[in-house]
Amino acid sequence: MSSSISPLAPEAFPALPEIGGVTLRVARARYKNWDRCDLTFVTLAPGTAVAGVLTQSRCPSPEVEWCRAALPLGTARALVVNAGNSNAFTGSRGRAAVEAIAARTAAHLGCQPSDVFVASTGVIGVPLPVDKAEAGLDAAYAAAPCSWEDAAATIMTTDTFAKGARAEVTVAGRPVKLAGIIKGSGMIAPDMATMLGFIFTDAAVDPAFLQQALSDANSATFSCITVDGDTSTSDTVLAFATGVAGNRLLDSNDVEGAHEFRAALKDLCRELAQLVVRDGEGAQKLIAITVEGAESDRSAHRIAMSIANSPLVKTAIAGEDANWGRVVMAVGKAGEPAERDRLSIRFGDTQVARNGLAVEGYDEAPVAAHLKGRGVEIGVDLGLGEGRATVWTCDLTHGYISINADYRS
Amino acid sequence: MSSSISPLAPEAFPALPEIGGVTLRVARARYKNWDRCDLTFVTLAPGTAVAGVLTQSRCPSPEVEWCRAALPLGTARALVVNAGNSNAFTGSRGRAAVEAIAARTAAHLGCQPSDVFVASTGVIGVPLPVDKAEAGLDAAYAAAPCSWEDAAATIMTTDTFAKGARAEVTVAGRPVKLAGIIKGSGMIAPDMATMLGFIFTDAAVDPAFLQQALSDANSATFSCITVDGDTSTSDTVLAFATGVAGNRLLDSNDVEGAHEFRAALKDLCRELAQLVVRDGEGAQKLIAITVEGAESDRSAHRIAMSIANSPLVKTAIAGEDANWGRVVMAVGKAGEPAERDRLSIRFGDTQVARNGLAVEGYDEAPVAAHLKGRGVEIGVDLGLGEGRATVWTCDLTHGYISINADYRS
Repeated sequence: MSSSISPLAPEAFPALPEIGGVTLRVARARYKNWDRCDLTFVTLAPGTAVAGVLTQSRCPSPEVEWCRAALPLGTARALVVNAGNSNAFTGSRGRAAVEAIAARTAAHLGCQPSDVFVASTGVIGVPLPVDKAEAGLDAAYAAAPCSWEDAAATIMTTDTFAKGARAEVTVAGRPVKLAGIIKGSGMIAPDMATMLGFIFTDAAVDPAFLQQALSDANSATFSCITVDGDTSTSDTVLAFATGVAGNRLLDSNDVEGAHEFRAALKDLCRELAQLVVRDGEGAQKLIAITVEGAESDRSAHRIAMSIANSPLVKTAIAGEDANWGRVVMAVGKAGEPAERDRLSIRFGDTQVARNGLAVEGYDEAPVAAHLKGRGVEIGVDLGLGEGRATVWTCDLTHGYISINADYRS
Repeated sequence: MSSSISPLAPEAFPALPEIGGVTLRVARARYKNWDRCDLTFVTLAPGTAVAGVLTQSRCPSPEVEWCRAALPLGTARALVVNAGNSNAFTGSRGRAAVEAIAARTAAHLGCQPSDVFVASTGVIGVPLPVDKAEAGLDAAYAAAPCSWEDAAATIMTTDTFAKGARAEVTVAGRPVKLAGIIKGSGMIAPDMATMLGFIFTDAAVDPAFLQQALSDANSATFSCITVDGDTSTSDTVLAFATGVAGNRLLDSNDVEGAHEFRAALKDLCRELAQLVVRDGEGAQKLIAITVEGAESDRSAHRIAMSIANSPLVKTAIAGEDANWGRVVMAVGKAGEPAERDRLSIRFGDTQVARNGLAVEGYDEAPVAAHLKGRGVEIGVDLGLGEGRATVWTCDLTHGYISINADYRS
């Protein structure tokens, strides 16, 4: 864990509401040689609906495979999160560890093992020690409930601050609450999912509809962030709906309040996703990249990601250098339709290139001032069509090298 | 230009042979505020055949467009290379500069402008000053011929050492020579081409056959290197064959010596490509990544590139850390067929993971010793098929950040 907090961190952990049907507990499983809580145990009211998006990696962790198998059943009674050991690439011993965690939890709660969702994060290649996991689970089960901030801190690894967000929405006259926590700092380039994120709501939501809403939100939020272009083996976002709010079941877009619920869920996901970028390893600046005028939204997204993953663009921003030539390079290499002589680029509100060449004598002062801030906006207009996308990333600094060249497996 | 020479540089510039029909000259065009030669002017005997591979960027420089238009004609009389200004993304003024250079050169030599090949490297977005180019050309035309090392040094930008390689081969009893020079250090992820590389031979070769041989060689050499995953707007490799050696024209694979010539050309290209990686920005180690057992060679190449471009793998090697979990991650994110439980990984000669999990109690001493050296080998066996590829990259260090966050456009 890093000793200094990201300069992009919010001032404080937000005040998250209690969510009916959700109880949080943490314990020390001591997966690493540290004195901190590293096991999070969340119990969920009977009848809780669940949805999830998981890494597309071809080398997923057994936790990801477990969740993928359990999600179609649509119901959840518990979530267990281990920090310090990802349990990925551990063969049959890793699978056995996940099965043992689910079985132990099911025995405590009197539910099916398939009602237990498991996620782990940390070093790859070391089987999760079953004895530590079981002792940690037993300790957590006996512990007093804890706060959202405690749970958000317990799922952290290289993160420098605990991350949470909230939303409230009225569904057909009933107030409904959402709260989410997330962790992630490096190995962040989610492909249909991101690191570990957990969203809880007291709304009554049909699992299939919750899945649809989460997948939609994901494509505009978690799938639009990158720290280093490296996609984790363990990326997992799960959403749990306990139904305690007592609203009429949300099971289609035609139900009153469905639209509002989806919008609130997407806002919450965007906030959580941006918190991960704000804690990007070595990050000094949060960069929003908007590509417009592409042939399609998908094409715009790919070009934006090509810019966001370019080490030359990211180091230029770290150096507070308006090096838009590197943006041109990243557009050119994206492999998507682009015409050099229609391309326009802005930093903040200042147009620096238009229709394929530099804007003669543009005012450099506002650009320099913009680049000195913590938030940087890059805008690209391809001039081809209506496709549009925004993605978020951070700059690439000496801090990233220090964190990752010194990290020992 | 960096002040310190890459630790991966060869001890000295090699002794390159004179190539009949090729005359090298350099001059000071002063494209930047520096006191060094920055314009290279190569004259070629009448009847010289030419072939080339150019960047696939959608935002190519006007030089690349000029070469692309001239290549099908198959003949060359001159090559002009400008260092310090890439002339990319400069609209009609950039195109006019290239046309002016070709016209001035054609007037000196009494040839067609389309016989003049032009390449430029340096900052993006500033039109190449025509007056400086023309004065530089005139000075070069009047200058005495120079050495290969002088020419190789004159095409450099952020390179820390001049790069050249040679080959000799007998074509149907006739000795034939090849010599090549190249530059490149950052913005290196060639897509069917690389930075600026120039190959000269006195062999008599038909242009179409030369193109075929160069494209083949390129796919196994320049297309297999990456420094930072960023593809330049200006990548260009040109091969010139003057025919002065007097061999029977090489115009098909059936001609005696054709196979030997192609093999020599490929060896030369591989050597030049590796020299670029050896001068990768901030590089401390040369990393060779071999992927075997893939479903196809193409799939193996993509997986190898996913590993080679992963900042987490590259920083692990910089830290001399045998963090094979990051290799697993990079295989998983490549989007190519892979089965976690068949995956095996080695560092140097030591197998560290086999069939989806760590090799229990493998000897760490030879791995640690291997990682301390200048050359690191990573081997991945997917266990699926016969596909195979090797790519070369360098580690990601504080040096890369220093060079690119401090560089001012």
